Amino acid sequence: MTFAPLPSPAVDSFAGDVFALPPIALPSPRHTAWAERGECWFTLPLRHAGSRAVRIAYECHGPVDAPAIVVLGGISANRHIAASQRYPEAGWWQDQVGNERALDPRKFRLIGIDWLGADGTLDAPIDTADQADALAAVLDALAVRRLHVLIGASYGAMVGLQFAARHGARVNRVVAISGAHRAHPFATAWRCVQRAIVGLGETGSQRKAALAIARQLALLSYRTPEEFAQRFDAPAAHSDGAVEFASQPYLHARGDDFAGRFNPTAFLRLSESIDLHQIDPAGIRVPVTLVGVNEDRLVPIADLYALAEALPERTKLHALRSIFGHDAFLKESDAIAAILRDVLAGEFEVAA
Amino acid sequence: MTFAPLPSPAVDSFAGDVFALPPIALPSPRHTAWAERGECWFTLPLRHAGSRAVRIAYECHGPVDAPAIVVLGGISANRHIAASQRYPEAGWWQDQVGNERALDPRKFRLIGIDWLGADGTLDAPIDTADQADALAAVLDALAVRRLHVLIGASYGAMVGLQFAARHGARVNRVVAISGAHRAHPFATAWRCVQRAIVGLGETGSQRKAALAIARQLALLSYRTPEEFAQRFDAPAAHSDGAVEFASQPYLHARGDDFAGRFNPTAFLRLSESIDLHQIDPAGIRVPVTLVGVNEDRLVPIADLYALAEALPERTKLHALRSIFGHDAFLKESDAIAAILRDVLAGEFEVAA
Repeated sequence: MTFAPLPSPAVDSFAGDVFALPPIALPSPRHTAWAERGECWFTLPLRHAGSRAVRIAYECHGPVDAPAIVVLGGISANRHIAASQRYPEAGWWQDQVGNERALDPRKFRLIGIDWLGADGTLDAPIDTADQADALAAVLDALAVRRLHVLIGASYGAMVGLQFAARHGARVNRVVAISGAHRAHPFATAWRCVQRAIVGLGETGSQRKAALAIARQLALLSYRTPEEFAQRFDAPAAHSDGAVEFASQPYLHARGDDFAGRFNPTAFLRLSESIDLHQIDPAGIRVPVTLVGVNEDRLVPIADLYALAEALPERTKLHALRSIFGHDAFLKESDAIAAILRDVLAGEFEVAA
Repeated sequence: MTFAPLPSPAVDSFAGDVFALPPIALPSPRHTAWAERGECWFTLPLRHAGSRAVRIAYECHGPVDAPAIVVLGGISANRHIAASQRYPEAGWWQDQVGNERALDPRKFRLIGIDWLGADGTLDAPIDTADQADALAAVLDALAVRRLHVLIGASYGAMVGLQFAARHGARVNRVVAISGAHRAHPFATAWRCVQRAIVGLGETGSQRKAALAIARQLALLSYRTPEEFAQRFDAPAAHSDGAVEFASQPYLHARGDDFAGRFNPTAFLRLSESIDLHQIDPAGIRVPVTLVGVNEDRLVPIADLYALAEALPERTKLHALRSIFGHDAFLKESDAIAAILRDVLAGEFEVAA
């Protein structure tokens, strides 16, 4: 994808300044593996960096007249939440999306987006409030007035909560998994170190190496000592005076894979965006379902208890236990699916 | 300090090949702030890198005929455990060492060393077993046949346990604070990332910057989310489009301070040494006092419980709670002092 920045007129609001590409020709709505992709451009008044011309890419699964559900993941997630006939590669939440799965594209219109800043062309502080406003602009372009549910995990949970705070009239319920009303100061410190690592990589190949190491560190913040003790409790390998510890091949592979597909500027700005996140829960008037993980070292479950206490509307908090810590939303598919089914069943009862 | 490597003859044992500088002229033994420094050279058969000529610097406080106590800290600690009249700058364990303190140099001969590899001239894998053997060689040079107690914290606890396993006849009791029989695989992964960061710094100034960032990450592994939530729960500062988060000035200051005084090669090899550490507790026949910290994220207290179970001799485990996590041995001075006093009182009872 290439993106030529548009001229950036001064605007007070992004609304009304939105347009989308015409949707592609769609197969029959009864076809279950049906998806469309598009992009929309608009100017967005950023919280920390003035008005900018931005582009957001989206992907939709399911009938246009079905209840709409937005699905948002971590900073490295994108609009491609699941495979379809047209886009058959696996999506980042493949386990939850598909026929008979919790998020069934025969029943719902499922919408994913690429994050504001994900293409690396926006080198300015990005707030989760900016992401929420960008999502609202995409929904304008898609003519979605009100979401049935917004489901966000990790960074997506933060953006979902911001959407509830800023665009509460446009969503019936928010499900926020492993994300809270603020970044924890210790998690912020971890990410500051990750960004400093990327800053060490000044030139091309070193920039990739630095991004790979930053990703290794991010991964350690997502996972748990318990998982590493199970997987990597083996002696070091020695060869020619060099030492390799048991987790190193795994860390290298994950870091290099990420560095091969992610833009360093996008990483820096989206990582920073997590740390700029701050919401007053008292301003959220949308019912929220929170999901926390006891072993999550990045988003302490205590922050989710505090958030649940502070939210004024009906709130439900699910506390999971998982050896995968912050990554439970990707790894504990059955437990997450059960919660999503429960939420969606409940919504229908309320709507009936 | 400069160190010209000696020719490295093939030896089967370091013993008998040890010599020390003559001790400096000492003031009266009744003078309480009395210390001597010296160095000894010897060849040491390294576990992973063959025989090497090495130098270990030491510092002693207290009368030569008093019961000898070796005091070992983390990889960044050194021989200077406390201030004396001759060396008045504060030592790394100042709170524990001094008249009327738990380690009173009027009652004990207190011995500190610089780690094997601390001067950066030994660029080869270093095992904690090598450190224990080096310590034994220093004790030979100082004519200390048997230690009253060996007290080690963090890396020093690992080396202390190795000394108990390899030179058990030379120590009455070991106190191991926040160190176990092995490095935890998750902590190893953290340190692998730290070493990878240092590897990114290829040239002079960047090498220091890389070391500073690696130290920031190390510091995060020493401390806890609870402490950061107390100290750094403040909004980010914005200036000219740049964002600074609340913990960043602290992290920068600590990282830069470390990079200014520590050799990158020493950091790489001593960090790696932690991860090479592995002991069979069944081989330790010395009574051990273990001290663990519930909030320690680097050395999970579960590993100390497992070690206590596996040690065949009389073992006592003190489990502390501390918001300072792994750094409790530096910050919880009263709790640590109480344990040291208890151990030393107990030893005297046994000896009486």
